[in-house]
Amino acid sequence: MAETTASMTELLREMGQRARRASYAIAALPPAVKNDALERMAASFDANRERIKTENAKDLAAGEKNGLTPAMIDRLRLDDKGIDGLMRATREIAALPDPVGAIENMAVRPNGLQIGQVRAPIGVVGMIYESRPNVTLDAGALCLKSGNAAILRGGSEAFHSNTILATLMEEACRAAGIPEGAVQLIPTTDREAVGAMLKAEGLIDLIIPRGGKNLIRRVTQESVIPVIKHLDGNCTVYVDEFAELPMALDITINSKTHRYGVCNAAETLLVHAAVADKFLPLVLEALHAKDVRLHGCPRTMAAASYVEAATEEDWYAEYLAPEMAVKVVDSFDDAVEFINHYGSHHTESIVTRDMVRAQAFVRRVDSACVHVNCSTRFSDGGEYGLGAEIGISTDKLHARGPMGLRELTTAKWVVLGSGQTR
Amino acid sequence: MAETTASMTELLREMGQRARRASYAIAALPPAVKNDALERMAASFDANRERIKTENAKDLAAGEKNGLTPAMIDRLRLDDKGIDGLMRATREIAALPDPVGAIENMAVRPNGLQIGQVRAPIGVVGMIYESRPNVTLDAGALCLKSGNAAILRGGSEAFHSNTILATLMEEACRAAGIPEGAVQLIPTTDREAVGAMLKAEGLIDLIIPRGGKNLIRRVTQESVIPVIKHLDGNCTVYVDEFAELPMALDITINSKTHRYGVCNAAETLLVHAAVADKFLPLVLEALHAKDVRLHGCPRTMAAASYVEAATEEDWYAEYLAPEMAVKVVDSFDDAVEFINHYGSHHTESIVTRDMVRAQAFVRRVDSACVHVNCSTRFSDGGEYGLGAEIGISTDKLHARGPMGLRELTTAKWVVLGSGQTR
Repeated sequence: MAETTASMTELLREMGQRARRASYAIAALPPAVKNDALERMAASFDANRERIKTENAKDLAAGEKNGLTPAMIDRLRLDDKGIDGLMRATREIAALPDPVGAIENMAVRPNGLQIGQVRAPIGVVGMIYESRPNVTLDAGALCLKSGNAAILRGGSEAFHSNTILATLMEEACRAAGIPEGAVQLIPTTDREAVGAMLKAEGLIDLIIPRGGKNLIRRVTQESVIPVIKHLDGNCTVYVDEFAELPMALDITINSKTHRYGVCNAAETLLVHAAVADKFLPLVLEALHAKDVRLHGCPRTMAAASYVEAATEEDWYAEYLAPEMAVKVVDSFDDAVEFINHYGSHHTESIVTRDMVRAQAFVRRVDSACVHVNCSTRFSDGGEYGLGAEIGISTDKLHARGPMGLRELTTAKWVVLGSGQTR
Repeated sequence: MAETTASMTELLREMGQRARRASYAIAALPPAVKNDALERMAASFDANRERIKTENAKDLAAGEKNGLTPAMIDRLRLDDKGIDGLMRATREIAALPDPVGAIENMAVRPNGLQIGQVRAPIGVVGMIYESRPNVTLDAGALCLKSGNAAILRGGSEAFHSNTILATLMEEACRAAGIPEGAVQLIPTTDREAVGAMLKAEGLIDLIIPRGGKNLIRRVTQESVIPVIKHLDGNCTVYVDEFAELPMALDITINSKTHRYGVCNAAETLLVHAAVADKFLPLVLEALHAKDVRLHGCPRTMAAASYVEAATEEDWYAEYLAPEMAVKVVDSFDDAVEFINHYGSHHTESIVTRDMVRAQAFVRRVDSACVHVNCSTRFSDGGEYGLGAEIGISTDKLHARGPMGLRELTTAKWVVLGSGQTR
């Protein structure tokens, strides 16, 4: 075990140094070179469909042997449609505007210095993820486009699929003249590699974990490198006393039932007491008709026989399933306090016609995404117009909510003078 | 020991919960209330000069008994001039624009949603610092102005001074109607309190350490909370082959000798080989005349008898003293590589008339602050026009370089709809 750790430390040191050298080169590349590499990746996925499917078949067979659920097997699968999706994603990322080098807020100081901020790559990004092999492409391509080197650590269940994708991506980078180390997949499923990655201070600048809560907790506890995590999405719809009820009904149903297994689905519904008598029968009936299991406070339970009693855990729950917690609140203040206490600081929507309420909700709700009169389901990089996203951050620093290309860069101060001294 | 830790964990839990509650209230306060509290602080420092000086005298006496250097004693001292400085700093912070609530980049999506980002407080900021008691005021006042609750942990050598300042600040907040917990000083010098602070996940959102390298290393290693650190400032002036030499001389002398003990003083000088014969005699003579001890590469040593041989450590050194490392480089590329390898990613200046070189330097140097044709000494919140700064970050995420009020906020996504669903 100790030996493994030492060899893993050495492996990550070598990969990290290669990535660091590559990162300095990528940071200075013109957009055309990065886009050429991305186009070559897409073409290579097309030209190597059989190789990809052969490697993917090994993972699928192992997955079936190891008893993965049909849903998990499905997420693992890379068929022709999946490969088409990889190609499309790569070309979409190539088509996005390059975030590097943009100068923001340039202003002249009294002494004539021009001072502003220039967007620069972060450097080396370490990505730790589970399951779906397309994250190998998404993460590697987004990092490259934003001028970062990437060290990727995928799940063991997708190891063969990740390896062939990373190999094709590395070849495409080489063919485009990008130095080795731009995109690297950790070439082992040894769990110790994750530990070594989290200790590679000075070689990796940022760790982004994507996966289950256990993975994310481990990363947060062990990492000495800054982490931007996406912990969970217990999103809330709050129907205010000044809500238009048909709109509130549409937004609640869409937020809960449009898709169940996603982090921006609503899990909790709060209803202002002043509209509860009118709104609860409508919304509970509509949710029940869609087979959504309902957990309610006593006042909600009184409105429909099929509502079960909510426990304390229900208010915290991220069901990711046809299930919802429903509560009547006596005031706007109660709603805000409830959300800040029980919510996961991901996405919350208020439905109201009242401008002052809407403003107060935006100001006081401590969440990455605060929505007014629209579905929680819009909280997504594509919907926000960021293009592809590398994840959705529930952290507060650097990036909150959907993380696109801009969030994979940082701001350096640039000061242009003509000989000024103090 | 174990018992102490448990009681410290409990203490930090209570302080953190109070801070969290207060943070939600402060986030919604109008600027006038926060400014009223700051004005009351300034007035209270004025009205309580004797109490402040009495408490400060206890720290000074203990410091002398414990053998602090005269420079350390001096930094500890709060005389009438020092109290005037506290009052001025408080009023300057009150006069700055409020960073909370500004909406940025609001744009309309095809479906009619208006999507932008609103500046919001981070929440609860934990500040760990050493020595100078005025950091108690700076940190507390900047956090309050930016809508954050602050938990302050000052150095034991300034404990009495910090305690009286924090007490007056808390009283001023209370008088302005701000809920308890807005500004709290940890009421013990027990070292275990720092450990408990670094583990207070969910209660503290950000840790900012300010102090020596040992403190910062400990914080980075132990913290499970995001940290923005200011590690060190080994800043470099690079004199390019296309530099105007009199300008290069002024900038080098100013960067090195304007003040020695500051993180934005230059510690290393790189000179392009093409101008070394002309420039080295000028600059070495001028530095030598100011009693700056010089460590050089062989080519630099050949230019003046008083240059000592630089060791590998000299290239990494943050002297904070009249001492400088000087090296001749054969090319622009060598200069950039040297800086990225040996520098501390704080502030670097290039002196050149060549536009393309300047642009490449800005793009390729991996530092928080990249200066062209001006002194490294401008790298400072005040000089950059940010107003007061809470520190200078050498981290890459969230904030690089001087951290002012804006960097003490974060961006929430705000989405305004009229009933949109997916």
